[in-house]
Amino acid sequence: MNKYFSKEEILCSDSFFRKNLINCLSGYKSLNLIGTKNSKGLSNLALFSQVFHIGASPPLIGVLFRPHTVKRDTLENILETSSFTINQVGAAFYKKAHWTSARWEGSEFEKTGLQEEYRNGFFAPYVQGSPVGLGCSLVETQTLQVNQTVLVVASIDHIYVEEKGLRDDGSLDLNVLETVTVSGLDEYHLGNRLARLHYAKPSKEVEEI
Amino acid sequence: MNKYFSKEEILCSDSFFRKNLINCLSGYKSLNLIGTKNSKGLSNLALFSQVFHIGASPPLIGVLFRPHTVKRDTLENILETSSFTINQVGAAFYKKAHWTSARWEGSEFEKTGLQEEYRNGFFAPYVQGSPVGLGCSLVETQTLQVNQTVLVVASIDHIYVEEKGLRDDGSLDLNVLETVTVSGLDEYHLGNRLARLHYAKPSKEVEEI
Repeated sequence: MNKYFSKEEILCSDSFFRKNLINCLSGYKSLNLIGTKNSKGLSNLALFSQVFHIGASPPLIGVLFRPHTVKRDTLENILETSSFTINQVGAAFYKKAHWTSARWEGSEFEKTGLQEEYRNGFFAPYVQGSPVGLGCSLVETQTLQVNQTVLVVASIDHIYVEEKGLRDDGSLDLNVLETVTVSGLDEYHLGNRLARLHYAKPSKEVEEI
Repeated sequence: MNKYFSKEEILCSDSFFRKNLINCLSGYKSLNLIGTKNSKGLSNLALFSQVFHIGASPPLIGVLFRPHTVKRDTLENILETSSFTINQVGAAFYKKAHWTSARWEGSEFEKTGLQEEYRNGFFAPYVQGSPVGLGCSLVETQTLQVNQTVLVVASIDHIYVEEKGLRDDGSLDLNVLETVTVSGLDEYHLGNRLARLHYAKPSKEVEEI
């Protein structure tokens, strides 16, 4: 049985109800911590559900930022230094990751107990213990006309993955890595594999790998 | 134990290995079928892992399309008609959803056995049995300079959700809805809830709702 909402009903609904519902509509979302440092050396760590694949050759990744109308440390640090890290959130530290979203003074690393780690001279800090860490550099930004959301496009320059999750074909076993996914604003999940499926062809129904 | 890849190593690696790895780096991705129809009445259905939340007030959603250098039926139909549906993929039909990605002649609805459904006079077809169906209209497109990827931004005008997954606070229980998530190119998963967490404050560690 379906429940229907028109756009008008949504716009007139309670804002908390609306935020919860609209944030759930796209389905499960990626969950990553973004590490940055400003030019004065102050580090910052923030949780994002809006990181997505853009291209494999060259390796590109995108991050969507809420409108740049209030202070956004992560976005400002990226625009200032061009450097940031993307760190997948693991089940062992997702509560600390959530805690980074509180309104802290100073670095979220110190406050939440997540450890910053500097690797191979890269400017921005990685999150120690993250199953996948990416060292990224700014390539391009686009600002959406409709609501001033900012899309940051970055080059993936350094990749660190926990070996136990790396398969021979290059794919990652996110179940083994205990990577966390998020739905809506506040609900965290592990993935539970159904199957990998062979490349689809019209001539036969899809088969599991 | 971490395995490290530099950008140079990635660019020199086997293209299959590279695609698998880079597509896994952002973590779990949303999984949705996009339904469209061209002005001649031919319907189309295609699987996307690049649908994401853009804003709640007004409700906006984004879809990222590979470079528009070859024929892209979904993108062309959206640009032509401004109308499309986004349908979350459920566990009951994820294999049929995967099959839409084969190179079909004619409508993927007929070929894969997924049923198209027209609701309240909306131009584009919904997928019958999808736990969440959205009727969307084109608002804006942005083309990335770096690789000609096209970002489509759309207004969410109609929302249909299966009642069993809708909570009183507006959030959706994606575990109950059996919404599927994807990692990499071909690996499908269900979500398995860890917890919902209270709004984060500096004054105390995060707590489960």
